[in-house]
Amino acid sequence: MSRAAQNYKPREAYRFFTPVPTRWNDNDLLGHVNNVLYYRFFEVVIVKFLMEECKLDWFRSPILPYTAENRCRFRRPLSFPDVVEGALAIGRLGSTSITYEVALFRPGEDIPAADGDWVHVWVDRASERPVVMPEDLRAVMTRHRVSI
Amino acid sequence: MSRAAQNYKPREAYRFFTPVPTRWNDNDLLGHVNNVLYYRFFEVVIVKFLMEECKLDWFRSPILPYTAENRCRFRRPLSFPDVVEGALAIGRLGSTSITYEVALFRPGEDIPAADGDWVHVWVDRASERPVVMPEDLRAVMTRHRVSI
Amino acid sequence: MSRAAQNYKPREAYRFFTPVPTRWNDNDLLGHVNNVLYYRFFEVVIVKFLMEECKLDWFRSPILPYTAENRCRFRRPLSFPDVVEGALAIGRLGSTSITYEVALFRPGEDIPAADGDWVHVWVDRASERPVVMPEDLRAVMTRHRVSI
Amino acid sequence: MSRAAQNYKPREAYRFFTPVPTRWNDNDLLGHVNNVLYYRFFEVVIVKFLMEECKLDWFRSPILPYTAENRCRFRRPLSFPDVVEGALAIGRLGSTSITYEVALFRPGEDIPAADGDWVHVWVDRASERPVVMPEDLRAVMTRHRVSI
Repeated sequence: MSRAAQNYKPREAYRFFTPVPTRWNDNDLLGHVNNVLYYRFFEVVIVKFLMEECKLDWFRSPILPYTAENRCRFRRPLSFPDVVEGALAIGRLGSTSITYEVALFRPGEDIPAADGDWVHVWVDRASERPVVMPEDLRAVMTRHRVSI
Repeated sequence: MSRAAQNYKPREAYRFFTPVPTRWNDNDLLGHVNNVLYYRFFEVVIVKFLMEECKLDWFRSPILPYTAENRCRFRRPLSFPDVVEGALAIGRLGSTSITYEVALFRPGEDIPAADGDWVHVWVDRASERPVVMPEDLRAVMTRHRVSI
Repeated sequence: MSRAAQNYKPREAYRFFTPVPTRWNDNDLLGHVNNVLYYRFFEVVIVKFLMEECKLDWFRSPILPYTAENRCRFRRPLSFPDVVEGALAIGRLGSTSITYEVALFRPGEDIPAADGDWVHVWVDRASERPVVMPEDLRAVMTRHRVSI
Repeated sequence: MSRAAQNYKPREAYRFFTPVPTRWNDNDLLGHVNNVLYYRFFEVVIVKFLMEECKLDWFRSPILPYTAENRCRFRRPLSFPDVVEGALAIGRLGSTSITYEVALFRPGEDIPAADGDWVHVWVDRASERPVVMPEDLRAVMTRHRVSI
């Protein structure tokens, strides 16, 4: 059994989905989407979740998310002109930090091209010190938790 | 003790060093180098190591490294015009795969701005199937292993 | 009359349209899409035109387009999460080279956020020497010429 | 005589020089530095000039440069791991706007890999309206004008 087929979670394990169109230049000289760009795609998914579901306003919000850690497992290549399906669920939910489970699916495929996790710590915009997530934000996060 | 000060490895734990100049546009709208770019910097370090120490020729080599997994812990912000000190050591050394331990230091600082690991699987350029690393490549890798 | 309102061509002057979704990180630290990215968006539009209308296969085509020159006039800021409307028409049509007229419109706006031109020279994939455009490619180009 | 050899200005026509190291991923799937990145390199050169010679502080300066227009002629390919020599001179010097003449040279070559121009309009940080350049800034610009 190949590495790519092991230990992945299916689409049903995610709670928020958004399309991520690739750009020609996302491909690198090896002919596939460059690995670093997978994190750019994860970022697109998380930012969409924060704006659409959590109503985050990057320019005015008193609190902002800072990235503490992230990780990606690369299972299958992506290539322009794929329109990738980005998927997200909330994993660990702390008081000041949160772990997103994220994945990128090619259309029609059940094994993700990549999956990983991304940890945000919420900080005060001015002091840059961690702050406890407000209740309304926490409620949205809770609704998107994975149960499996 | 803050998160940033925990569990990091000092400069002495790395075996290969190369400068990574930042570019103005590496900063994002929050005023720091965007998190995704840290992986771009890791890539610069690993590619330099492969070209300078391992003599890899991207256009002619019969084997190529494919990324299987990577991870980054963000400890302190970087900002343009920092010239970052990239650091690398070989961690786990398998028959077809290898794990680089990588870190980014700001000049004069002992705590890395970020550290992480990056797993390469060596594949045949044509078939894209994993191949056992040749002995000369393996020898270079072995010389750059960490002992601590 | 402000600079942004001068000498622009309306939507009707273009012949091919495609959406260009922005990404969060396209914004730079000044809060708008970074100027260099406008060329990335132009590239998206031209590549879409070459693939969808001209059926160009980047991996197998015996001829490839090399960029000789390009230019952009920046009229109004773009910002994530704008979905930009990319527009293209064929301007000058030479024997080995072609000039695309390109523009980026924000939804509902008549003045382009930016417009410019982009010159491709067609070269042989192996020798990298200019080649005369094949008739079928030239026919597609001709159909997308601007008459105004 | 090839296009690349025509109408270029030699190194002596420029007044400010700075190295621009390439990154592996600057190469695109055609094996050369992607055209859009040339503008990123121009940006590196102009930003270095503004910070080192003009002492611009991006975070505190009451005036900021907005890009109105730019252009690039591509003469010869660049490829990682080139360390490009960026060159700049002041061309047209208006009251609120300025045109930089910029070029990228490969080490040891007299014909630039690319050259172009880039127009900045100085605006008030808060109102974003054009402002007349202060005398000290204008003096630095004047010292870097080309005479040929």
